Amino acid sequence: MKMHDLLRELREPSDSKIVLLVADGLGGLPVESGGKTELESARTPNLDACARDGVCGLSIPVLPGITPGSGPGHLGLFGYDPLEYRIGRGILEALGIHFAVGPRDVAVRGNFCTVDAGGIITDRRAGRPTTERCVAMCRKLQAIQIPGVDVFVEPVREHRFVVVFRGDDLGDQVNDTDPQQVGHQPLEAHGADPCSEKTARIINRFVAEAARVLRDDAPTNMVTLRGVARYPRIATMQEVYGLRPVAIAIYPMYKGLARLVGMEVVDAGASLGDQVETLRRLWNQYDFFFLHYKYTDSTGEDGNFQAKVEMIERFDAEIPRVRSLNPDVLIVTGDHSTPSRLRSHSWHAVPTLLLARTCRPDPVTEFGESYCLRGGLGQFQAMYLLPLALAHAGRLGKYGA
Amino acid sequence: MKMHDLLRELREPSDSKIVLLVADGLGGLPVESGGKTELESARTPNLDACARDGVCGLSIPVLPGITPGSGPGHLGLFGYDPLEYRIGRGILEALGIHFAVGPRDVAVRGNFCTVDAGGIITDRRAGRPTTERCVAMCRKLQAIQIPGVDVFVEPVREHRFVVVFRGDDLGDQVNDTDPQQVGHQPLEAHGADPCSEKTARIINRFVAEAARVLRDDAPTNMVTLRGVARYPRIATMQEVYGLRPVAIAIYPMYKGLARLVGMEVVDAGASLGDQVETLRRLWNQYDFFFLHYKYTDSTGEDGNFQAKVEMIERFDAEIPRVRSLNPDVLIVTGDHSTPSRLRSHSWHAVPTLLLARTCRPDPVTEFGESYCLRGGLGQFQAMYLLPLALAHAGRLGKYGA
Repeated sequence: MKMHDLLRELREPSDSKIVLLVADGLGGLPVESGGKTELESARTPNLDACARDGVCGLSIPVLPGITPGSGPGHLGLFGYDPLEYRIGRGILEALGIHFAVGPRDVAVRGNFCTVDAGGIITDRRAGRPTTERCVAMCRKLQAIQIPGVDVFVEPVREHRFVVVFRGDDLGDQVNDTDPQQVGHQPLEAHGADPCSEKTARIINRFVAEAARVLRDDAPTNMVTLRGVARYPRIATMQEVYGLRPVAIAIYPMYKGLARLVGMEVVDAGASLGDQVETLRRLWNQYDFFFLHYKYTDSTGEDGNFQAKVEMIERFDAEIPRVRSLNPDVLIVTGDHSTPSRLRSHSWHAVPTLLLARTCRPDPVTEFGESYCLRGGLGQFQAMYLLPLALAHAGRLGKYGA
Repeated sequence: MKMHDLLRELREPSDSKIVLLVADGLGGLPVESGGKTELESARTPNLDACARDGVCGLSIPVLPGITPGSGPGHLGLFGYDPLEYRIGRGILEALGIHFAVGPRDVAVRGNFCTVDAGGIITDRRAGRPTTERCVAMCRKLQAIQIPGVDVFVEPVREHRFVVVFRGDDLGDQVNDTDPQQVGHQPLEAHGADPCSEKTARIINRFVAEAARVLRDDAPTNMVTLRGVARYPRIATMQEVYGLRPVAIAIYPMYKGLARLVGMEVVDAGASLGDQVETLRRLWNQYDFFFLHYKYTDSTGEDGNFQAKVEMIERFDAEIPRVRSLNPDVLIVTGDHSTPSRLRSHSWHAVPTLLLARTCRPDPVTEFGESYCLRGGLGQFQAMYLLPLALAHAGRLGKYGA
C-alpha cells in the first residue's frame, strides 16, 4: 500500500494548523575538518528554543547519497515520493511564472543566446540581457505559428523564457538543444518515442523560426531549449491530506512547485518579514502554510559561509513572530543541504525540527547538524515528515482495528 | 523508480577512487553483558583515526533481524538490493572456482559423503578427504553422461565439488539431496515447477550414476547435492555505476560474488599484506577496489573471541598503507556480524566507517559498535552505502531541476 493511499484513508478533519518553514539549502559543512557548519556557527536563540521544546532529526531528501534539485527536494517535504513524482524543468519554470499549464501541454525552458554568422554559439546567455529586452524578444517569438499546436512564449527574466506547446499526443522524451558550451551549434531535437518525435519536430521548427525572427537582434539572436516536460498528474494536498494549503514564497520556482501539489499561491511581498506578515494575515483562511526562504541556499551556492550564517540569523529573528501565532505544528527544515564549501546542493542530510504539544522530549538543545544527530526524529526520508506533521496536528486516525 | 535506474541516470565520469574494505563478519557481541565487543576490545589506532576523520554508522545488511549469508551480505555492500537479487549457492561456488557459468547453466554444490551398505549416510563429509582425492573422485564423476544436457564436474577442495548442468529450460526450484544429518539416505530431488522437475530428474540420474561410479571408493563413495541455482542476470557495476571495479580477494566465494557484478578478479596473493600490495600495484588501473578479509569471520565462527580480536588488530595494522594511497573514499565495513559468542553469522548491524573530504563531522572518535551508534551515517541499509560512496567521490549529478 502506498503512503498516500494510507493517508487518504486515515485522514480526519481538524481545525489544527501546520506551518512548514523551508530554509532552502539549510544544511551545510564546516570549512575546516572539526569545525562548525553554517547553522552551528549562526547565533539562533529562537531556533534553539524550538529545538529544546520540540523534536529534532536529519532529513534525507531522496535517498542516501542523492543530491536533489529544488523539485524533488520540495516534493519530498510536501509528502510526495520524489522518485515516483518527477517534474521536468520546463513545467517548473512555467508554473513559476503563473502560466496555467494543463494536461495537453509540454513546457520547455528557453534561453536567449548569441550565435556568430556560422550559427556557432558564442554566449550561452546572450550577455545576460535586461528583463525588458527579454520581454521584447519574447514578443517577437510570440508571432511564431506552428500547425497543429498552440505556441505560448513567456518571458522569465534576463536571458530566460518559457515556451509551452499545447496539442495532442505530445511526448517529452526529447533532448536539450543547449550544447552546454560555447563553440558549438545548438543541437537538433530528437524524440525517444513517436509522441516525443512529434514534439521534437515542433521544437526544431520553433528554433528555425526563432533564428529567422531574431536574426538582426544580436546578441539575443538565437535560442536554446531544454527541460522538455509534460504536465504531470499529481493528486493535490487537499485530495490526499484534506488540507487547505497555501504557499508564501517569493521566487517563481517555489510558487510553481506549490501550485503543482494544489497549494494556493499568494502575493507574499518581497522580504521574509513580508512573508511572515502574509502568514499572519492569512492565518484564518488556511490550515497548511508553506513558507519558503531562499537566501540560505543562494549564499551557500555563492560559497559565502559568513553570508549564509547571516541569512540563517535573519531567518532565526523571524521565528518568534511565527511562534506567536501558536501553530499546532511548526516544522523548520530545508529541501536539501547547500554547503558553502561545496558551492552547490549536496546529498548531506538536512537539520530538521518539529514543534508540537505532542513531541516526545529528546536531548537536543540547539539547532544544528551535529545536535540533530541525537534527535528524536533520527535520520528519516523527507517524505515522512508530512505524515508526522499530520499526526501531531491530530489529523490522522488509527490504522486498522 | 529503482535505485539502480536512478544511479544510471545520475552517474558522472570522474577519476576518483573508492576503496571498500570488507572485514567479513566484523560486527560482534560482548562475552558478558556490559562488556566490549571484539572490535571494541581490539587495539585499533588506525581505524580509530579513520573514525575521527570520517563518518561512522551501523549497516543493516538486509533488513532488521535478517542474518545474511555471504551472498546477500556482499550484494548489499555492492549496492544491489539483496532481496531483489538472489544468487544460489551453486552459482557462487562455480564462480568461486573460476568456472565460466553462463545463462543456460544450473550449478549445484556437491559434497562427497560416506554411505554404508544400506545406502545410509555415515559421514556427511566423507572424512574430509584431501583435495588430491577430491580431484581424483571428480575425474571419475566427469565420465557421467546424461542425455540432453552437458555435465561439468569440478573439484573445489576437500569434500567439496561443483556440478554444472548446461541445457535448455532448466529450473532451479529443487530441494537439496543432503539430509543434513547422518543416519539417513540422501534425499530424492523434486522440482517445484516443470522446468525444475526437469532439473530434478537430471539430478537424480546424476546421483544414481555417481553412486555406481564411486561404489568402491569408500569413504568417498557417495555424493549429496545442494544449492541448486540458475545463473542470475545482474547488470554490472560498470553498467550501473560507471565504475571500473576490481576484487582483491583470496577465497573463491568472494571472487565469485565479485565476478557476478562485473568486477575483474585478480590474483591477490595469500595474505592481507599481499592484498594491500596488490591494491597498490593496481591503483592506476581501476577506480573501485573491493578488498575482502576473511579471518574476522572465521575466528568468529570458531567462537574464538581473542583470535577475532587479534585478526581485527592485524587488519588495523594494514590501514595506513591503504590510506597512504589517498583514496577519495575509503569504506571499512563487514558483510554481516559474526559474534564469536554466537559462533555464526548474525543479524546485528555492522560497524561502518566512510572517510572522504566531504564528510560532515560526527562525534565518533573510536571504531566500534557502541561508538558507531552515535555516528553521522546512523543506521542504514547496506545497499545505500554505495550511492553514498559515489556521492562523496563526486560521481553523481543532481536529481531533478
